[in-house]
Amino acid sequence: MDVGRQEAPVRPPHTRPRPRAVLAMAPGVREEVFGHEALRRLGELTELHDQVLHEVSSPDALRALAGAEVLVTGWGCPKIDAGLLDRAPGLRLVAHAAGTVKTFLDPAVLERGVRVCSAADANAVPVAEFTFAAIVFGAKRAFTLARRYRERGTRRDFSGLPWLGTRGVTVGLVGLSRIGRRVMGLLGGLDADVLVYDPYADPAGIAELGGTAVDLDTLVRRSHVVSLHAPETRETRRMLDARRLSMLRDGAVVVNTARGGLVDTDALVKEVRSGRLDAILDVSDPEPLPAGHPLFDLPNAFVTPHLAGAQGNELGRLAESTLGEIARYAAGLPLLHEIDRGELDRMA
Amino acid sequence: MDVGRQEAPVRPPHTRPRPRAVLAMAPGVREEVFGHEALRRLGELTELHDQVLHEVSSPDALRALAGAEVLVTGWGCPKIDAGLLDRAPGLRLVAHAAGTVKTFLDPAVLERGVRVCSAADANAVPVAEFTFAAIVFGAKRAFTLARRYRERGTRRDFSGLPWLGTRGVTVGLVGLSRIGRRVMGLLGGLDADVLVYDPYADPAGIAELGGTAVDLDTLVRRSHVVSLHAPETRETRRMLDARRLSMLRDGAVVVNTARGGLVDTDALVKEVRSGRLDAILDVSDPEPLPAGHPLFDLPNAFVTPHLAGAQGNELGRLAESTLGEIARYAAGLPLLHEIDRGELDRMA
Repeated sequence: MDVGRQEAPVRPPHTRPRPRAVLAMAPGVREEVFGHEALRRLGELTELHDQVLHEVSSPDALRALAGAEVLVTGWGCPKIDAGLLDRAPGLRLVAHAAGTVKTFLDPAVLERGVRVCSAADANAVPVAEFTFAAIVFGAKRAFTLARRYRERGTRRDFSGLPWLGTRGVTVGLVGLSRIGRRVMGLLGGLDADVLVYDPYADPAGIAELGGTAVDLDTLVRRSHVVSLHAPETRETRRMLDARRLSMLRDGAVVVNTARGGLVDTDALVKEVRSGRLDAILDVSDPEPLPAGHPLFDLPNAFVTPHLAGAQGNELGRLAESTLGEIARYAAGLPLLHEIDRGELDRMA
Repeated sequence: MDVGRQEAPVRPPHTRPRPRAVLAMAPGVREEVFGHEALRRLGELTELHDQVLHEVSSPDALRALAGAEVLVTGWGCPKIDAGLLDRAPGLRLVAHAAGTVKTFLDPAVLERGVRVCSAADANAVPVAEFTFAAIVFGAKRAFTLARRYRERGTRRDFSGLPWLGTRGVTVGLVGLSRIGRRVMGLLGGLDADVLVYDPYADPAGIAELGGTAVDLDTLVRRSHVVSLHAPETRETRRMLDARRLSMLRDGAVVVNTARGGLVDTDALVKEVRSGRLDAILDVSDPEPLPAGHPLFDLPNAFVTPHLAGAQGNELGRLAESTLGEIARYAAGLPLLHEIDRGELDRMA
């Protein structure tokens, strides 16, 4: 399961010079993501510029870019667009040591023949784990029942809960993304039926993974737990709107570890406040939620601050994945996590 | 993974009369555990007495017991001891439709040649799922960080957290019980090292399951997360005492879905209050915790009211397992979940 510890292929000795590489990310990110050992390995694989670029307009930054073949990006990196490419004529690879590249990467970069890879798959590991935990605790009503125990001293007071428990429940996954696939794998350990809505996924492929492809309305009507794993695009924005939320069965649990904008927050608040739906949200719209927002205090809601993705010791996976890709690039091997234009368009 | 849906073997037709069976459990438990369909199947497999015994001294109860070959027990059933056996001379099988039998079963019953089986394995399924979710949320500091977000509006404020995340953590399982084994199986999906302390388990067997057998002090010293899966006996009572809790690394998480008495609660409260340890507790000592107990309100503790075991839709698994055993008994096949004396002595 550990995508991070895969060994980078050994670079053939002296076949070609090591590519010149530059790091571009927000201050502190290099230290957070790349440990000492990962930086040492990056320094072996590449001729590494010793400064991290936080911007791309200073004379120093321009000099570094002018010679760069590999740009190692991370959270908070500057926008990578055609203008930047003009200043980095030797650039061949953007290796992103984090999840989504959509926030900083202009599609023009791909059109100019620069290759792009990301550590989204490595970042998917903790998100899927977190989601699985949320599904189990959601089905068990752990948050509601912990609160009743604390506030009323009641044990196993299941009053008002239309259903409870993980057995035989239907889990609806919206989006068979990298994360959605991993959640599906973990759900194999539960006695659950899995429905999948994903307009880009092949129904036969979904069936092979043990799920059933359905349209979104069907998914919403039949699921006990709905978990979102879709990107936020024009099409997906507020896909869980008031109408679809109202179609969910009583006691259904909405799990969102993807993007807050996929859900109509006000409509969700109404349903959670009435006690009809539960919500476990790692993302929200707006994000962050303002102080005193009802979702913070309703007993059947649990809100975490966008921490499902790689944090702490999990950040090392992003570095490992990135090092693996750079090693493959340097050795002339196919990349494992290269992004193409179609994927970029559908991306979170 | 679903131990419940295994089909009961078909009883050979007319080889022998159906055994006479009597249900003994607290009021309401029959309806809660055995659904309509399960009761119908029980009625096919056995000649079922139509009253549920809540006690074993009334003339009606004595009459039912006098003819019983199978006693189907559940939560809150009366004590089963030598005295009861004297009144049930035809009793051959006690089929317990719940987890532990230790609370009501006198070991004398086994010595008299009455066979006993339980649904502990079916009950282990949701406990292991709950435990796995607790380990993931524990390692991610979901409760602490949700609270900081709610109270201070801070996102990813990891201050004071010595470590964070599931990657490469060491999980120490105390007790390779049915539940411990299942937790170990689920942990196979994490990038975690698993240590196991169980004086009754074979180290080679533990290694085969992917873990490392260690003594309890070593487990405590090395683990990021310690999860308890031991019975409460004279030997195990307060096995996590002040000394062992103090040996845990900073930021370690104590998960208890087993028995509250395994932990010295006052010592744990001290460590949790100081912020040095986190706790996720489904059981406690005392249980229930009194109103206003500090564990209810510390940001790094999460306390649920003993709900990890089968609840709601999960109860059907207990009935399924029990029906399967009775069918095997009636067909003269070996039972899958029979309890022997040694097991009873070690039992939770």
